[in-house]
Amino acid sequence: MSTTRTPVRLQAVSAPDQPDVTPALHELYRGFEQELLVPLWTEIGDLMPAHPRSRAVPHLWHWDSLLKLAARAGELVPVGRGGERRAIALANPSLGGRPFATPTLWAAIQYLMPGEDAPEHRHTQHAFRFVVEGSGVWTVVDGDPVPMNRGDFLPQAGWNWHAHHNATTEPMAWLDGLDIPFQYVTEAQFFEYGRDELSAAERTTPRRSRSERLWGHPGLRPLTATPAPAGDSPLLAYKWEFTDAALADQLALEAEGHGGTVEPGHAAVRFTNPATGGDVLSTIRAEMHRITRGAETAPVRETGSSVYQVFNGSGTVTVGDTTWSVTRGDLFVVPSWESFSARSEAGATDSDSGGLDLFRFCDAPVFEALRLNRTRRGDA
Amino acid sequence: MSTTRTPVRLQAVSAPDQPDVTPALHELYRGFEQELLVPLWTEIGDLMPAHPRSRAVPHLWHWDSLLKLAARAGELVPVGRGGERRAIALANPSLGGRPFATPTLWAAIQYLMPGEDAPEHRHTQHAFRFVVEGSGVWTVVDGDPVPMNRGDFLPQAGWNWHAHHNATTEPMAWLDGLDIPFQYVTEAQFFEYGRDELSAAERTTPRRSRSERLWGHPGLRPLTATPAPAGDSPLLAYKWEFTDAALADQLALEAEGHGGTVEPGHAAVRFTNPATGGDVLSTIRAEMHRITRGAETAPVRETGSSVYQVFNGSGTVTVGDTTWSVTRGDLFVVPSWESFSARSEAGATDSDSGGLDLFRFCDAPVFEALRLNRTRRGDA
Amino acid sequence: MSTTRTPVRLQAVSAPDQPDVTPALHELYRGFEQELLVPLWTEIGDLMPAHPRSRAVPHLWHWDSLLKLAARAGELVPVGRGGERRAIALANPSLGGRPFATPTLWAAIQYLMPGEDAPEHRHTQHAFRFVVEGSGVWTVVDGDPVPMNRGDFLPQAGWNWHAHHNATTEPMAWLDGLDIPFQYVTEAQFFEYGRDELSAAERTTPRRSRSERLWGHPGLRPLTATPAPAGDSPLLAYKWEFTDAALADQLALEAEGHGGTVEPGHAAVRFTNPATGGDVLSTIRAEMHRITRGAETAPVRETGSSVYQVFNGSGTVTVGDTTWSVTRGDLFVVPSWESFSARSEAGATDSDSGGLDLFRFCDAPVFEALRLNRTRRGDA
Amino acid sequence: MSTTRTPVRLQAVSAPDQPDVTPALHELYRGFEQELLVPLWTEIGDLMPAHPRSRAVPHLWHWDSLLKLAARAGELVPVGRGGERRAIALANPSLGGRPFATPTLWAAIQYLMPGEDAPEHRHTQHAFRFVVEGSGVWTVVDGDPVPMNRGDFLPQAGWNWHAHHNATTEPMAWLDGLDIPFQYVTEAQFFEYGRDELSAAERTTPRRSRSERLWGHPGLRPLTATPAPAGDSPLLAYKWEFTDAALADQLALEAEGHGGTVEPGHAAVRFTNPATGGDVLSTIRAEMHRITRGAETAPVRETGSSVYQVFNGSGTVTVGDTTWSVTRGDLFVVPSWESFSARSEAGATDSDSGGLDLFRFCDAPVFEALRLNRTRRGDA
Repeated sequence: MSTTRTPVRLQAVSAPDQPDVTPALHELYRGFEQELLVPLWTEIGDLMPAHPRSRAVPHLWHWDSLLKLAARAGELVPVGRGGERRAIALANPSLGGRPFATPTLWAAIQYLMPGEDAPEHRHTQHAFRFVVEGSGVWTVVDGDPVPMNRGDFLPQAGWNWHAHHNATTEPMAWLDGLDIPFQYVTEAQFFEYGRDELSAAERTTPRRSRSERLWGHPGLRPLTATPAPAGDSPLLAYKWEFTDAALADQLALEAEGHGGTVEPGHAAVRFTNPATGGDVLSTIRAEMHRITRGAETAPVRETGSSVYQVFNGSGTVTVGDTTWSVTRGDLFVVPSWESFSARSEAGATDSDSGGLDLFRFCDAPVFEALRLNRTRRGDA
Repeated sequence: MSTTRTPVRLQAVSAPDQPDVTPALHELYRGFEQELLVPLWTEIGDLMPAHPRSRAVPHLWHWDSLLKLAARAGELVPVGRGGERRAIALANPSLGGRPFATPTLWAAIQYLMPGEDAPEHRHTQHAFRFVVEGSGVWTVVDGDPVPMNRGDFLPQAGWNWHAHHNATTEPMAWLDGLDIPFQYVTEAQFFEYGRDELSAAERTTPRRSRSERLWGHPGLRPLTATPAPAGDSPLLAYKWEFTDAALADQLALEAEGHGGTVEPGHAAVRFTNPATGGDVLSTIRAEMHRITRGAETAPVRETGSSVYQVFNGSGTVTVGDTTWSVTRGDLFVVPSWESFSARSEAGATDSDSGGLDLFRFCDAPVFEALRLNRTRRGDA
Repeated sequence: MSTTRTPVRLQAVSAPDQPDVTPALHELYRGFEQELLVPLWTEIGDLMPAHPRSRAVPHLWHWDSLLKLAARAGELVPVGRGGERRAIALANPSLGGRPFATPTLWAAIQYLMPGEDAPEHRHTQHAFRFVVEGSGVWTVVDGDPVPMNRGDFLPQAGWNWHAHHNATTEPMAWLDGLDIPFQYVTEAQFFEYGRDELSAAERTTPRRSRSERLWGHPGLRPLTATPAPAGDSPLLAYKWEFTDAALADQLALEAEGHGGTVEPGHAAVRFTNPATGGDVLSTIRAEMHRITRGAETAPVRETGSSVYQVFNGSGTVTVGDTTWSVTRGDLFVVPSWESFSARSEAGATDSDSGGLDLFRFCDAPVFEALRLNRTRRGDA
Repeated sequence: MSTTRTPVRLQAVSAPDQPDVTPALHELYRGFEQELLVPLWTEIGDLMPAHPRSRAVPHLWHWDSLLKLAARAGELVPVGRGGERRAIALANPSLGGRPFATPTLWAAIQYLMPGEDAPEHRHTQHAFRFVVEGSGVWTVVDGDPVPMNRGDFLPQAGWNWHAHHNATTEPMAWLDGLDIPFQYVTEAQFFEYGRDELSAAERTTPRRSRSERLWGHPGLRPLTATPAPAGDSPLLAYKWEFTDAALADQLALEAEGHGGTVEPGHAAVRFTNPATGGDVLSTIRAEMHRITRGAETAPVRETGSSVYQVFNGSGTVTVGDTTWSVTRGDLFVVPSWESFSARSEAGATDSDSGGLDLFRFCDAPVFEALRLNRTRRGDA
């Protein structure tokens, strides 16, 4: 338990129209401090603002810089019990130096050297992997080996055993997303170590995981003896070929005059639990957006925060008052209630898909489950 | 927006088996700091513990001390626009001096002088009032005046207009509970000012609110034209006479050999939304427990945190390793996964009910909605 | 199994524009009959009408006549194993002489002589009792004795053990409502005999059942070790005093200018499961309506059928094209999509409540669960 | 409205231990008849049996015979307004000659001649098409043309506009399944005529419907502006290639020692709504089962009734006490609570898939929504 006792001190007053601090009031405030009390009237502006004002700031991390540092860590830092993973997390510059991309979300680059194993463990934190480039690593979830390739999204619901294994002669890096900050602030976390070694069968490298063979057929639920899980997706990989086809289909429908997109030139899919149609993880939403060349999305504000990674193409993104040029692998955060829009660059040549593909994850399921979600579209 | 940029600095390392910090590793860590990155392997012990280790500590506040300071604030600090409420909040000693009783819950004493009005406003934060003593204040919710008397529980679901009005010649104090810290960390908050003056009709003081006349009949839903609200209770007061009778009924059933209690000598009810049977607020659970003289509850650990207030009687409560004697009005917190039990004192004379009555509120609905809840009963 | 083989015969053709029955077509139709086939085109008008056209007709039964026949049955027909209950059911005149008040609902008068017991059994059919007059019978549900008095509503969810016992020296009659026809047509029924004798403890006559002591407090859920039931109400009696007070409160609110009624002069409550806020039984909805003297309800059409019993007062009711004068105890049916309205008679003297109180039960939960419900208000 | 008044007549008594019909009792029974009343004690055995005893009987229809009669109807009976569809329904031999395959389900062969159109209409009855052989017809649902080919399953949720169009020079037949009997007995039906002519765009024949392009990607939900529908599947075709692959995957997993099947040699998938994971229609469940050569399923009893069609292979099926040899296209019914099992014939040569493929539809969603479902596995 963290038992550092911090003195209560009236914060920088965040409300207008404060009473004059007369000697009597000063004495009252000292009494509050002594009894571990804080009045609302000095704090209300910070605690109860007219709309969310995030403690986080918009920020951009370049994939190249991350990759270089991760590769260097691959040389210097072993992976194994204790540290568990060679993961290096984005630390939002205004969140106190903690490894929190936003107040609720963790985003890290994970790096595995040829032949390395990241040992088996499980935890209540919900996680996923998203592969911006490379291949060759297998995630083994409850004994089911799942290959990872460019564009694949792999959810990892809380409390399932999992390990990683690099079966190739090349290092591999990918994005890890978790709800570590959310579970840290709400204090829900459990963690257990698993076996030290995977079995030989788990080190095989099938093209499709068993989860995909059972649950990866559109609209079809297997009637196996095993009951369907309560809330987290039984499908352990969402392969890029399906995501890409779904986005292409939406844009083709739009071109044929049938709608199907979010807005002109903007296709998007959400990764969902096929057993429920709901979000793939109970605290994390994940989506892929495609913006055709020259198109621009309308600004949107939402309660809750997002992390984006550029998967294909390049363009500019605007978060609040800040605009950045972004390209493959770049990561950036959109804090709560900051406006967001993106524009795909007309001349981009680094796109397999002909547009700007943005992978997004966010904490919207938390807000929706508690009915705290709000959205405002347009410039207002 | 809070834009203070904090330098990223590797925290006090919270994981075993760290690699030796060679010059090369030192340089790597400097690179991380420069790029706003933090590795998992130095932080994992703090972020991913084997079980929740709360940043909050168990703590007890005596009602007498609170009441004295609140009364003094009544003399010195006006209530009105800007500060909005004369509310003084419990600040857990290890939560950085912030007005957070636990990482997710706000608990404050609110104090209104004779004839005073606390002005109308609304906010997304969910709130309730609980009255440990006194009477005479009316809460006006969306135009419906609701009286407050000893033992009454008054939920105040987010985004409803509300004001308070002291119609008597005596000051009155009560407990305010809110999810301010939870909405602060997740950044969901909206706030609006309402009318400056209540109408004459709203200053009347009927014995029962309109909400009670519509929704306060057991098992009976009014078929009014107005649809029932989606998730927050339409019943604005849970009067003590019903709570008391429900607890007495459970203990009588137990005495007749029919069970009905949580455990021997321990009766309890949860305040629920009559339109759904679910929790009275979407982020806050509220309950009343009665422990008969000489009885003791079995220790329980739960994910999530609670605040208790003694309503009747006296006894001892044990939170983790700490045991306190408590009496009417005293407030204490049970942090996440700390063990809790309570014993009612045999000779107590300050109980209307013949036992130790404990009012409790906690953040369990958040954990249940996201399936992060765990409970362990017994000493283990 | 009913194995009577009925010859397939083309029904009275219920569609326009039939093809001429040439010899070739005649031969085809003979072929259909031989192969147990029926074409859609001859039947479509009956099977797929523009809107529901009930096979049932509106009909009125007078309580006096029912009571006389039931009393005579009390003398002539013993109650006991095999017949199980002395219940006499309404048979809608156009439903083939079956004991079906509507295509889905059963309504019967049940009659118990002084000292008699109706033996314990259980069945998947959902049931309730409603007491229009008299008192003295106890229903014993899973060992919990529940008294029955004028105005009380007692739900009896499927598959709970139950028996009845007349503890007085007077006979008693009441209304039984069940979903027997619905479970008959869908073929869902199970039935089991229980113990032949109740225990002495079960023959006691407490004022309130244990279920009421646990679940009968408004908005309060008992935190007993026993988990709450999945879908049927744990509250076994809805006493008249609460129903009456709820209706009076709505009319008082209306008189004070605050709304609260369904329409002017028309108050109504629905009996709900306090654990969920939903309907008291999963296939049957039950409500009490009060229409003040001189008031008249607007006509309403709904999918699904209802049975009404007059509890207080007298007036006229209009079902489709038929209008009847009704008084205490009278029962009538409203078939699917027939328009219904009621008028309270100005000079009625037989009302405890000062108005026309109508008890209603219907099959709306079935329609809502399957999203087949539709309602049309007004004369259209 | 059907207003035939049927005399109430005491049914063939279906309960044991009836009282002797003395003259007094005879007179009482005459009184019942006059007042349109029926006692429970004479009817209880039929209405409240120990377990469901279906009014339907197991029965088998041979596809060849159906197809011949349907082809003859194609020559003799025009399709068009009034009759609406050239559909010929299975009439269970013990259901009074009505076109009801079971008490709740309709199953018909529909037949469309080259170039014919079945006109647009909509109805609250839920429907689907299943194609056992042939191709060339397009179903047009709310303007979206959906091709139909062997093995495809096409749900048609209630109240959507739909028409059919044969674009080829060959006639085509397929299976229509609906909940006509269920909506007939509960009296929920609405029906409307649509446009007389489809537009040219609707007569085009794309390879995939728009619904498949939006909703046919596994685990991916389109984020279009259009909100997802409440309860019925937005996916209008479940193509055979996916169903076949899902079944093959399950059997391959089983062969590799990983389970995945319902029982040894028995794979099965359920057609589900991708927006919810629930049943494809709110009153009808649809599944495809594959039994490998030589395998046999364990007997199962379920509340509710099913209709099966053999899609591939041949074998024997046992329903209650009856066993039939079946082959491609054959249709049979399993009444409520009758035991069912199937065996795939070792030497079958008429199977594309190497096993016995059985398409099944049933009324289980009704039973589950109302919590009336029960299942018993094994011979007991």
